[in-house]
Amino acid sequence: MKSDIQIAQEAKMEPIIKIAEKLNLGEDDIELYGKYKCKISLDVLNNNKDKKDGKLVLVTAINPTPAGEGKSTVTVGLGQALCKTGKKAVIALREPSLGPVFGVKGGAAGGGYAQVVPMEDINLHFTGDMHAITTANNLLCAAIDNHIHQGNDLRIDSRRIIFKRVMDMNDRALRNIVVGMGGKVNGFLREDGFMITVASEIMAILCLATSLSDLKERMGNILVAYDLDGNPVYAKQLEVEGSMALLMKDAIKPNLVQTLENTPAIIHGGPFANIAHGCNSIVATKMALKLGDIVVTEGGFGADLGAEKFLDIKCRYGNLTPNCIVIVATMRALKHHGGVKKEELNIPNVEALAKGIVNLEKQIENMKKYNVPVVVAINKFVTDSDEEIQFIKEFCAKLGVKVALSDVWAKGGEGGLELANIVNEVLDNEESNFKVLYDEKDTIKDKILTIAREIYGAKSVLYTPAASRQIAELEKFELDKLPICMAKTQYSLSDNPSLLGRPENFDITVKEVRVSNGAGFIVVLTGDIMTMPGLPKVPAANKMDILENGEIVGLF
Amino acid sequence: MKSDIQIAQEAKMEPIIKIAEKLNLGEDDIELYGKYKCKISLDVLNNNKDKKDGKLVLVTAINPTPAGEGKSTVTVGLGQALCKTGKKAVIALREPSLGPVFGVKGGAAGGGYAQVVPMEDINLHFTGDMHAITTANNLLCAAIDNHIHQGNDLRIDSRRIIFKRVMDMNDRALRNIVVGMGGKVNGFLREDGFMITVASEIMAILCLATSLSDLKERMGNILVAYDLDGNPVYAKQLEVEGSMALLMKDAIKPNLVQTLENTPAIIHGGPFANIAHGCNSIVATKMALKLGDIVVTEGGFGADLGAEKFLDIKCRYGNLTPNCIVIVATMRALKHHGGVKKEELNIPNVEALAKGIVNLEKQIENMKKYNVPVVVAINKFVTDSDEEIQFIKEFCAKLGVKVALSDVWAKGGEGGLELANIVNEVLDNEESNFKVLYDEKDTIKDKILTIAREIYGAKSVLYTPAASRQIAELEKFELDKLPICMAKTQYSLSDNPSLLGRPENFDITVKEVRVSNGAGFIVVLTGDIMTMPGLPKVPAANKMDILENGEIVGLF
Repeated sequence: MKSDIQIAQEAKMEPIIKIAEKLNLGEDDIELYGKYKCKISLDVLNNNKDKKDGKLVLVTAINPTPAGEGKSTVTVGLGQALCKTGKKAVIALREPSLGPVFGVKGGAAGGGYAQVVPMEDINLHFTGDMHAITTANNLLCAAIDNHIHQGNDLRIDSRRIIFKRVMDMNDRALRNIVVGMGGKVNGFLREDGFMITVASEIMAILCLATSLSDLKERMGNILVAYDLDGNPVYAKQLEVEGSMALLMKDAIKPNLVQTLENTPAIIHGGPFANIAHGCNSIVATKMALKLGDIVVTEGGFGADLGAEKFLDIKCRYGNLTPNCIVIVATMRALKHHGGVKKEELNIPNVEALAKGIVNLEKQIENMKKYNVPVVVAINKFVTDSDEEIQFIKEFCAKLGVKVALSDVWAKGGEGGLELANIVNEVLDNEESNFKVLYDEKDTIKDKILTIAREIYGAKSVLYTPAASRQIAELEKFELDKLPICMAKTQYSLSDNPSLLGRPENFDITVKEVRVSNGAGFIVVLTGDIMTMPGLPKVPAANKMDILENGEIVGLF
Repeated sequence: MKSDIQIAQEAKMEPIIKIAEKLNLGEDDIELYGKYKCKISLDVLNNNKDKKDGKLVLVTAINPTPAGEGKSTVTVGLGQALCKTGKKAVIALREPSLGPVFGVKGGAAGGGYAQVVPMEDINLHFTGDMHAITTANNLLCAAIDNHIHQGNDLRIDSRRIIFKRVMDMNDRALRNIVVGMGGKVNGFLREDGFMITVASEIMAILCLATSLSDLKERMGNILVAYDLDGNPVYAKQLEVEGSMALLMKDAIKPNLVQTLENTPAIIHGGPFANIAHGCNSIVATKMALKLGDIVVTEGGFGADLGAEKFLDIKCRYGNLTPNCIVIVATMRALKHHGGVKKEELNIPNVEALAKGIVNLEKQIENMKKYNVPVVVAINKFVTDSDEEIQFIKEFCAKLGVKVALSDVWAKGGEGGLELANIVNEVLDNEESNFKVLYDEKDTIKDKILTIAREIYGAKSVLYTPAASRQIAELEKFELDKLPICMAKTQYSLSDNPSLLGRPENFDITVKEVRVSNGAGFIVVLTGDIMTMPGLPKVPAANKMDILENGEIVGLF
């Protein structure tokens, strides 16, 4: 069997200029980065202001197993398949982070015959967006420590600096550090830490900003620290938001690449799906809607996290209306929710499936609460039995939800035709009356309760004393009227990763509440969230190489 | 008077594809990064293997004042002027580092009417080379700490890890840090520190490598630490040099831009001029020699450091033969060497000039030791008096060295015609019999003594006990047969920045000796070298901005 990179390297890519032409983008609308990547000018948004938007399809999933359920692969494959049905489809994806590429994950941009290419470039530096974010983030950090060193006019409390340095690397040694050692010339000693770049608030801001000036304003609004009187200190008080915007002048432009079948794919932004909202950028999605008939995009993690945030954060800020939500499930994951052990997931087991399918049921119910038509996609594995497939089809039929098999990993767009046809049918015949779940002007605790009850199915929400104090502080400073960004395990509808299926009668415990005031959301943590991964015993990096003839190996 | 960025923004740039065409580079030889930047494929070197090289001109300078003497400006202007004389000239420069752009320096890529453009891109992320170096460097660092965390099979002594993390930022708080805090999951506690990216050995390696496989091999040869038995640990033992090379696959390709007058400029690599050798890359220089009749390049700092390293390190590894060396001087700097105070440097003072010109005299003598023809360029200021100019001309005439006024800052190529004509004359009529100053197989102390006596004019070299111990250790591990990279103040021929003019009867004191085994040189430190700058009270960053219409301000 061929590896992803082998398949990717055998792809017949078209020059990106040709892909751009398909979208009516001329030479002045794009900036080439080599022959197969380009950035799209933000002027395209303005120039197409009066053009009607295409339809927006969100691909999400049930609560996944640790192996993942192939959501990106289905997203890419569905885009490919829609093109085969004669639609002008555009895929809008997140950018991968370098850190995990060298850690456990290796390269990734879809999989099998549903990939975006040039895979090796997308997985390495791509067009430099991550590096721009890293630099803008760290310029702000350098400005904070420099401000304190140079006299600290703002009276920043060095014990309460919130904004951390970032690096696009899996490097556990940097999680908790002490900076400023070595005496007076090196500044003041304090505790600090690095996060991985995708966890930076700058990344979340890039993805929620609607223009360069909006980006700049949001960066200025980042809450970076508290002063010695306990009052908030914002980034703009350090006067570097102009430089930060300058560093981001190209990063804000969406990147255009293509799939293995030459479907246009706009890849832009990729914030963490726990402490941030986990979706690609608003400007990329809006751009795609101007350029295509149908835009296929995805959210991180399962629907309880990724779709909820896509709908309640991204669509709210971007004024976006999703026309269809595709929920991806695999037989393996549904059986996993039915209690089957990892080693036995490949064995047909309709009983376990029947037990685990309640997870899918709940996610369908959840998505319907947003008044958007729902379609279920079964991401096919060779081990799936006919009985199992039949069971799911009947189950969905009872819920009045259309379901399709997707075999895009093995067959590309051809394997996604059943799904594409159903999606087309829904887009043509069913109406979306999208509404967000809660009013961002509600109190923080009311907003959290709404999400916990309506989406997770929780009984109630408990707060640690620290979390309650933090909420009171945000209210005091009027930083509370923002949408909520839940940070919760992706493996369960609850905050306990071992509660599979459709848990009931459980409470959610909020341990910490922070504001990402620049991005414009309140992060609610229900557990410990790792913002800087580590490398495994044998990192993926150890297998990678580039030969003198340019051939790349080990980047799967 | 217009600022550099105003002049740069008014430039009539040609599409870079047209500049490439002038060099007979076709579409397949280049990769576009927007309309005005491209990378050149390394295949171009192979395809032109049998083509005769152009002539190589090195621009260097006397010991500068802290304000700098405009060496880069003369380099760019000379290239522009040579084109005006009908030559196919190519400029080969170093890439600027982001850190200083936001610190004191602001943007820089030449100055006035002798600049390379697009200035704002060159000064910001350019084509991402710095970020690739940062990432490759930090991947190696993460691998070191991960190796220790995962069992430490190599028995790395965490007290003796030499290889440091880097960031392209002026950030004093990161100079000395403690990493690995927070208990077992975060690895082992140890002291560490960040350097600015241009100080990374990876940058020096990029600039001395002759191919991608050479780059990979050199990265594998980096001495990263000692083990608990005191034996060297090399990067290749961590098995990430393949990934590091993969990260550098585009960074190794030279970047093509243009001057304000559309002269081709290849900008590639920019290592520190103290702990590294301070020249642009060998591949870029070799490429330029294949593409142009005349290549104008520069070395960092004054001739005692920059030219010495260019000649003894870069030319040695690259098998390059410089055909002419241009020494830049300013009236201000010569008077500074003659003892004139900063406030009075603009007042004509032939007496002080006569006293200070010995610095130029010594640098001329030094360059002649390499058997390369020398030309002096006076970088003109409006405050220069005719008598002063006359004095220098006569002085140089006595030494048998040609001298020209350069007014390229104010007049562009037109202002460099006198210099260009003299350089042409020298290239046509004078022969270069270039030889390096010392044999790299000599002992470390012999090599240092040769440089100190021949170039600096020192009496002898003293060693701290630590330096002598370090030399003994390098000899023990047979890491001593490499060229020397002196780290010394740039302001004096001696190791004391206040000894101006042409000091005599002084000793050089060596405080520390390290090996950059991947780059292939031994770093000899004669003082404290700052490898991570800090931001000033009001950083240049505070004045920079980008407006919604895309206009950039404050990047001078």
